[in-house]
Amino acid sequence: MSEDRKLTAAMFIGVRGEGIISFGSGQPDLPPPQEVYDILPDYSGFKYGLIQGQENLRDALAKQYPRSTSDSFVITNGASEALDLSLRAIAWLYRKKGGNKPRCLLCRPYYYSYLPLVEYAGFEPVFTDLQEGRIVYEDFERKIKNCQAVLINSPSNPTGRVEAIDTLKKIEKITEELGVYVLSDEVYKDLIYVRENYLIKGPHVVTINSFSKTFAMTGLRVGYLWSLDSDLVKMVIEMKSHTSMNTSIIAQEMAYTATTVPKRYVDEQLKIWESRRDMIYKGMAELGLDLWKPEGAFYVLPKIANPRDFVWDMFHDHKVITYLGEWFGAPDRVRFSYALDVDKIEEGLDRVGKYLKARKA
Amino acid sequence: MSEDRKLTAAMFIGVRGEGIISFGSGQPDLPPPQEVYDILPDYSGFKYGLIQGQENLRDALAKQYPRSTSDSFVITNGASEALDLSLRAIAWLYRKKGGNKPRCLLCRPYYYSYLPLVEYAGFEPVFTDLQEGRIVYEDFERKIKNCQAVLINSPSNPTGRVEAIDTLKKIEKITEELGVYVLSDEVYKDLIYVRENYLIKGPHVVTINSFSKTFAMTGLRVGYLWSLDSDLVKMVIEMKSHTSMNTSIIAQEMAYTATTVPKRYVDEQLKIWESRRDMIYKGMAELGLDLWKPEGAFYVLPKIANPRDFVWDMFHDHKVITYLGEWFGAPDRVRFSYALDVDKIEEGLDRVGKYLKARKA
Repeated sequence: MSEDRKLTAAMFIGVRGEGIISFGSGQPDLPPPQEVYDILPDYSGFKYGLIQGQENLRDALAKQYPRSTSDSFVITNGASEALDLSLRAIAWLYRKKGGNKPRCLLCRPYYYSYLPLVEYAGFEPVFTDLQEGRIVYEDFERKIKNCQAVLINSPSNPTGRVEAIDTLKKIEKITEELGVYVLSDEVYKDLIYVRENYLIKGPHVVTINSFSKTFAMTGLRVGYLWSLDSDLVKMVIEMKSHTSMNTSIIAQEMAYTATTVPKRYVDEQLKIWESRRDMIYKGMAELGLDLWKPEGAFYVLPKIANPRDFVWDMFHDHKVITYLGEWFGAPDRVRFSYALDVDKIEEGLDRVGKYLKARKA
Repeated sequence: MSEDRKLTAAMFIGVRGEGIISFGSGQPDLPPPQEVYDILPDYSGFKYGLIQGQENLRDALAKQYPRSTSDSFVITNGASEALDLSLRAIAWLYRKKGGNKPRCLLCRPYYYSYLPLVEYAGFEPVFTDLQEGRIVYEDFERKIKNCQAVLINSPSNPTGRVEAIDTLKKIEKITEELGVYVLSDEVYKDLIYVRENYLIKGPHVVTINSFSKTFAMTGLRVGYLWSLDSDLVKMVIEMKSHTSMNTSIIAQEMAYTATTVPKRYVDEQLKIWESRRDMIYKGMAELGLDLWKPEGAFYVLPKIANPRDFVWDMFHDHKVITYLGEWFGAPDRVRFSYALDVDKIEEGLDRVGKYLKARKA
């Protein structure tokens, strides 16, 4: 593929238009709970908020996490900023202690932002390859010993898989023994089809979460981190006071309202996601594609021959946005988000089927 | 001063309370124009926006800057993120070309976030000392030759001074000749008492601006950068797609509304700021303090003996928040923001006067 056909995810984010079907960015199409908008008509805030985040929101979150107070949270510009600041803070503290280049373990395939975030923060990435979308603990154990941090993402974007609880417990144990930071990105914790979420715990665990997926608030950008490592939390707050200051106070107030919504909202969303999951999994299997059955989140990652041509042609000739597996460390695959209503999933699969058939002919 | 009396700006940001008079963080106390809130009752957005920023907002900004289109802008989480991303992008591009540790020139005293931002991004800071709050061009010229970037801030936080236009033109010339990036932080461009703002121009200039000061929207967090250096703009967008994604779409819509407000709003604000400026300058002179007359922004930076004790005691014993000059590279001074109504300025000055008198006695 020539240079002028360079593809990046940044090209596609936020792109919408007549006839376009986007299996691209991972955002719910269904709206947030109405309550989130109810605060707007009377809203009048404008002053700086606390860098750490609004107190009402952190108090509400503290009730959802064990052994925690509002001090254990930092509210951020989405989970993205929580990841970025955590990595930067860990690297900064490492260098302050005389270290040179810290190392961060990534489970491959990984969410496409992990590799640049790790590199921007000055880490050397180390990889452990997943098998059928799950961690191979022996390989993990060998590699974690030379790392200062690890990123865990269960349920996983892009694999749609949920990690075995046994493995997660072994990871808790070894990382605590080694004093390695665990960044556990659990933004899909409320979108699991096979079991309850398992919250990874430990003295150096940083849990990353967000209102984006659970409450369909992607564009509003409210995420957070939770950690019992108070030195790290302090370093993150200090950094954030320079790099972005408080997260937008109006978006935080909307997020606070989301914490008061009955659990019914989340349960009903999950049913919708599950029916879409069933539909796309069945549809892709019928197209003869090789893929893992999603257990959480809203992605499938089928193998596709010539994936760069596929992603380019599907967008330019068939108005279907998909994401290149190579952005996720899976060069023989393509990621589809199924955050679409069933009519669009059906129409999109139809276009994909026709294209693949024509290519074979 | 003992360690348990460690003072940081992050401690004070967003702190409010009964009887507290804050000369601390630089935020307007007067509300934004009403129009900014008018969009809220009907607001219904929730999806990801473009990483670069909403098109209506960038189109409106393009009309305010010469030779520019909406492509020249990136909307950010306040000017802070615009600074952070610009510095990170410059350092990243430098290292991609094989460089090791880039250098950034800072004019001292500097805005307190500049030094950590420069260091977090991996630059070595280089300093040129201001004289009476203005650049000494001979020193600047000698030092810029070994730097990849420079931060200019006129009107300046914390000095309140406005740079001589002749000096700015010489800086434009030499940085263009050398190919050095100029980050021109002009967030106070609409708050100048002595002349119109001078927009620094050049092929590698990145202008940093915000809605925070002009429209009193600090807590909402909408800033932006403008640059004709399209490679740098692209790198910033790529980074932002991982580090925070789009700036909160609801805050951007509020900012867009601010661009439609009649200029009268800004003119009226400026009159209020000027009367406060006159008052605090006169009051401090009467207290016998040594300070520069502010020409823009809303800060004074008087010399104060034993500044750490002053800041600590004024907060803990007299409920007056002030910022340590050493955070700004001015260890013998203390910064006061006069973003307060005149009654509070008067009361605050009164408490300061009594304290200084008691200390002398």
